[in-house]
Amino acid sequence: MILAVDIGGTNYSLALGTSDGRIHKRTTGSTNRSGGAQWMIERVLKGGGRLIASSPEAVSACGISFGGPVDFASQRIVNSTHVSGWDNLALTETIQGDLGIPAIVDNDANAGALGELTFGAGRGCRHLVYYNVGTGIGAGIIINGEIYRGANGNAGELGHVPVNPDGPLCDCGNRGCLESLCSGTAIGRRGEEAVRRQPWRGGGIRQAAGGPVTARAVFDAARSGDGLALELVNETCRYLGMGVAAAMNALAPEAIVIGGSVAKAGRALLEPLRELTDRFLMPVHRPHLTILPARLKGNSGLLGAVALAATLQTEDQATG
Amino acid sequence: MILAVDIGGTNYSLALGTSDGRIHKRTTGSTNRSGGAQWMIERVLKGGGRLIASSPEAVSACGISFGGPVDFASQRIVNSTHVSGWDNLALTETIQGDLGIPAIVDNDANAGALGELTFGAGRGCRHLVYYNVGTGIGAGIIINGEIYRGANGNAGELGHVPVNPDGPLCDCGNRGCLESLCSGTAIGRRGEEAVRRQPWRGGGIRQAAGGPVTARAVFDAARSGDGLALELVNETCRYLGMGVAAAMNALAPEAIVIGGSVAKAGRALLEPLRELTDRFLMPVHRPHLTILPARLKGNSGLLGAVALAATLQTEDQATG
Repeated sequence: MILAVDIGGTNYSLALGTSDGRIHKRTTGSTNRSGGAQWMIERVLKGGGRLIASSPEAVSACGISFGGPVDFASQRIVNSTHVSGWDNLALTETIQGDLGIPAIVDNDANAGALGELTFGAGRGCRHLVYYNVGTGIGAGIIINGEIYRGANGNAGELGHVPVNPDGPLCDCGNRGCLESLCSGTAIGRRGEEAVRRQPWRGGGIRQAAGGPVTARAVFDAARSGDGLALELVNETCRYLGMGVAAAMNALAPEAIVIGGSVAKAGRALLEPLRELTDRFLMPVHRPHLTILPARLKGNSGLLGAVALAATLQTEDQATG
Repeated sequence: MILAVDIGGTNYSLALGTSDGRIHKRTTGSTNRSGGAQWMIERVLKGGGRLIASSPEAVSACGISFGGPVDFASQRIVNSTHVSGWDNLALTETIQGDLGIPAIVDNDANAGALGELTFGAGRGCRHLVYYNVGTGIGAGIIINGEIYRGANGNAGELGHVPVNPDGPLCDCGNRGCLESLCSGTAIGRRGEEAVRRQPWRGGGIRQAAGGPVTARAVFDAARSGDGLALELVNETCRYLGMGVAAAMNALAPEAIVIGGSVAKAGRALLEPLRELTDRFLMPVHRPHLTILPARLKGNSGLLGAVALAATLQTEDQATG
């Protein structure tokens, strides 16, 4: 039995999970941003302690998916964009000290990649690329069944592959990263701009949005055949296709898995994405392109955390 | 002692090399394109036989760097763009049968990556990205000290990362690949176009070229401060920087090594490339960016072949 923790800027979850990918007990709450890191750590320790006490079996480890940069080698949180107090914080040490079980943390994109590989759409893959297309675009690369971290620990940042050198400013400080054009935030912003620029064509999207334009409204309007929305989806999938084709040409994984809130658009995203990725793909890779929707969805963070904690146990077995 | 073979569309070389990266005897000739694969195979068998007979030590294996796509798993040449008769050819079988030593073949970009890792600029790296910027742009990715091939065997094609969706048509059939904008051929073509479009600014490049514009002429003119040439180099390094930054953000290797004929431009290429790559790099990767010129140069194919044959011997030791 594993204690799984998913810490996000909007919500957090705690659960008991088993190494076959089942979630037993689960509690979810809204993140109190003004409470800072301390508030969240208290929730994790109290809620985690309660779950461990209620578990029918011994809880052997704690896995944590964190919605922000993590220095995996030192097991420290780097920071959080949304919540204060996380800078350089040794989260796993605190958890190990308080709950008395080994703990391991990684960022949510790597955890999601590992979760999809172990329990989701990527089961059986040796090499896998995972994109979490939500507020930003996180990504995780699996090579030979393991998260690939590179020489400095920060490999896998496929959301920051440049796709348009004259594109909009990205949160990372550069111009024209995939994230700056294709994240949920970026699709909403581009939708809002398009509706303002061409108000006579924007009715469908405005109606779907009922307020400021969101990525969801763009995909909803596209699904009903709205012309402007279809153009926006096409432009999004053209850029996303450049990024996915770059990843396929370079890494040739068995599957590319797309998760995150934007992936909820389903076929309205995946069908044009497959078609437009194909255009930027080397012919030799075309027959091998497999783009799949993530399967863990709401549980990706928790099941990623379970898979992460399972790597800890494998290491124990290997060394012990 | 290893028999090293380098087969290119313009030249070919045969040599004896040792596993410490020294080339002992070496013969080089011009490729007779009209002679097809058969002509080349005869040269390799005859020349190889002569080298083996003259070797002071037993020759244990043959490594081959081939200038075209190779199906590594089946050890077959896929084809050659320039020379007929190579389609689906089992080159290593023929060599093993005739010369009586185990043989191994890979494409020249992978061989170059392995050569630079083992004997050149990338010594000591665990993860490495190698670009061969010449007629086209080949690339090889080293992960954990080995060529990374992906699930379908064709990983590493970083020359076909799309950097401009409206860019020129590439030999691979797509638009705006790195190769279509930054290969030696592409730089020459873009130079020629620029000189025709702005003849009043093209004198420096024309003079350096003495005929149709080449990549070399563009870099030579840029080195003398020619304005149009500097613009072309800047544009080249901007696109190349997008590709290199994508590779760094994704793979975070210890070093990125640039070889091939265009790399002969030296600092005129590497200085603007470093600066422009930096602009597209996530801040977290910036302190780790290391772009190095290849060190094996004229011997990269042969030393890559030596390194390749050495992997064969390591495998023998591991399994035998």
